[in-house]
Amino acid sequence: MDYRQAILEIKGADTDKAKEAREYCDSLIKPFGALGRLEELAARLAGITGQIKNSFEKRAIVVMAADNGVYAEGVAAAPQAFSRLQAINMTRGICGVNVFAKNTGADVVVADIGLMEAPGTGAVHDLNIKRGTNNMAEGPAMTRAEAEAAIEAGFGLAAELFKKGYDIIGTGEMGIANTTSTSACAIALLGLTPELAVGRGAGLSDEALAIKIEVVKKALAVNEPDRDDPIGVLSKVGGLDIAGLIGCFIAAAYYRKPVLIDGAISLLSAYMAALLCPAAKDFMIATHRSTEPSYDAVIRALGLSPFLEMEMRLGEGSGCALAFPIIDAACVMMSGMGTFADISFDDSVLVDIREKED
Amino acid sequence: MDYRQAILEIKGADTDKAKEAREYCDSLIKPFGALGRLEELAARLAGITGQIKNSFEKRAIVVMAADNGVYAEGVAAAPQAFSRLQAINMTRGICGVNVFAKNTGADVVVADIGLMEAPGTGAVHDLNIKRGTNNMAEGPAMTRAEAEAAIEAGFGLAAELFKKGYDIIGTGEMGIANTTSTSACAIALLGLTPELAVGRGAGLSDEALAIKIEVVKKALAVNEPDRDDPIGVLSKVGGLDIAGLIGCFIAAAYYRKPVLIDGAISLLSAYMAALLCPAAKDFMIATHRSTEPSYDAVIRALGLSPFLEMEMRLGEGSGCALAFPIIDAACVMMSGMGTFADISFDDSVLVDIREKED
Repeated sequence: MDYRQAILEIKGADTDKAKEAREYCDSLIKPFGALGRLEELAARLAGITGQIKNSFEKRAIVVMAADNGVYAEGVAAAPQAFSRLQAINMTRGICGVNVFAKNTGADVVVADIGLMEAPGTGAVHDLNIKRGTNNMAEGPAMTRAEAEAAIEAGFGLAAELFKKGYDIIGTGEMGIANTTSTSACAIALLGLTPELAVGRGAGLSDEALAIKIEVVKKALAVNEPDRDDPIGVLSKVGGLDIAGLIGCFIAAAYYRKPVLIDGAISLLSAYMAALLCPAAKDFMIATHRSTEPSYDAVIRALGLSPFLEMEMRLGEGSGCALAFPIIDAACVMMSGMGTFADISFDDSVLVDIREKED
Repeated sequence: MDYRQAILEIKGADTDKAKEAREYCDSLIKPFGALGRLEELAARLAGITGQIKNSFEKRAIVVMAADNGVYAEGVAAAPQAFSRLQAINMTRGICGVNVFAKNTGADVVVADIGLMEAPGTGAVHDLNIKRGTNNMAEGPAMTRAEAEAAIEAGFGLAAELFKKGYDIIGTGEMGIANTTSTSACAIALLGLTPELAVGRGAGLSDEALAIKIEVVKKALAVNEPDRDDPIGVLSKVGGLDIAGLIGCFIAAAYYRKPVLIDGAISLLSAYMAALLCPAAKDFMIATHRSTEPSYDAVIRALGLSPFLEMEMRLGEGSGCALAFPIIDAACVMMSGMGTFADISFDDSVLVDIREKED
């Protein structure tokens, strides 16, 4: 299956099933709407799977690892070798995403989609399209064909997971300087002000932040990305990790599985996937509000809203791992709570309550 | 142990241990501060237990059930019998708090601290102080002695749990019309505007809300609670569930265990506990932002901030159940993540990164 073919076949959520789920929610022994966004989430999950009662036991977090040529401009605090080093550490179970994933029963699936140097371990999936992007401050980060190949590789990996029985995935990344590419794409697509949309990433000083802003402006000036051409934006000022994640979001929609959004980079990928395939949005679930400054503008543009306010900016898919229990809560609400009928509650009293209610 | 004696002996968090935890956080393989509020939470937990690495496996949610005489004024949508009915349902495992608690490995401990009618099942702890409060629109909800006895009963139940090996508790309540008493207390203690601090509770209509606001104003006018006398406020316009939860918060501080705050009623109880014993605040952890309008003012006054934005207003301790995985995440971050030393990362490079960082 080619991802472009998949896009043509993707249908949005089952709105009838979502409505049925909302109605079922109202029969549970609680006041109307008292479980707020969990009820909304349960309805969305019903729209995704076509079932009112769900459980998502087999879960994975896909981490796309890639390097960014723009690193050469001095936009990141960490050494470039960290991308590869941390990708390897993720296969050893010692990174943030690992401990949170283990804690919530998720597997971490790491892929080299664009590292400068091969990880040299079979534990990292080899999807490498290119050994790091080119420096976007000097020209396009990659060719259009490379961008499309990376989307396809991400699509393929997620498709493989769904075929293996995974019923929900989270999305993460590891790539030094990838908040630079993310900010550049967000600015290109949404017309944001660079000073407001470029952030400290893993923790830049004021001075380094000023350099990063100038580099993003330069990359946009040099490449002149067209906001109406998402693949063009991606290839000019994006990254291979972003491309791979776009593929994951499209695959989730195609296989009708929920897919969790992590922080700014994962979110930008989700947004770009929704530009390529608007119906894909129905399968996306926001998790936590990243402190990376582009996050708020992009999540608004996507029309979603996160559940967790953790002030995190780690990436790796760490926020997705934290959010699995919220998905579980929406599921057990539907499958485990009693209904007014179960407790033989007199219907006439119930009608009376509902009339007094809002 | 008398709760008043306990208050005299309570010491705040171990600030040295919290500092040590923050320093350990900085050694983990992630950018400085990238795990945001999880790092802050881990430091607080270290301050509570005196250990840098923690796990809280044996967990309970205490639900205080009580009736409110002010129900007679027409301030609630649900029938008064619901308090008792739902307390019983909680022992059958079919309420919201039950399914969320089961999902996160917590036991639900239900106590009748003020129900109008005994639940008639041994599964509900009998702490009954009074068969429902008096109608606070006509006079004090209870005597000062009753308020103190209810605090003591809550303290005793939580103390028993800690002695049994529970190492963390959540706090919940079940009591029709208890958002009315909660709002009245919040207004009395913080000088809030009734129109802004009285909400729809489980879902009142506009008309019923207007009645509720007038009833709260009347209760405050009739009782003239003194904001500098928390026990006076509690006995005049509070509730037995609130009193019981105050006891739980004090017990947690005395036994140096973390205690989770649920929604508006649990929060108001936490705030009152902190007025009686300022050091008790160090042991309290906010979970989710309730949509009940007094929540925001009281959480600000307490100086805490919730993690979850779920737009929930169920009570029962349901928000605490949802937050246990966040506590777990802070714990596994400290116990499971690798350090820069583990990965033999060259110290000179690390110093270089730290210098570039913020």
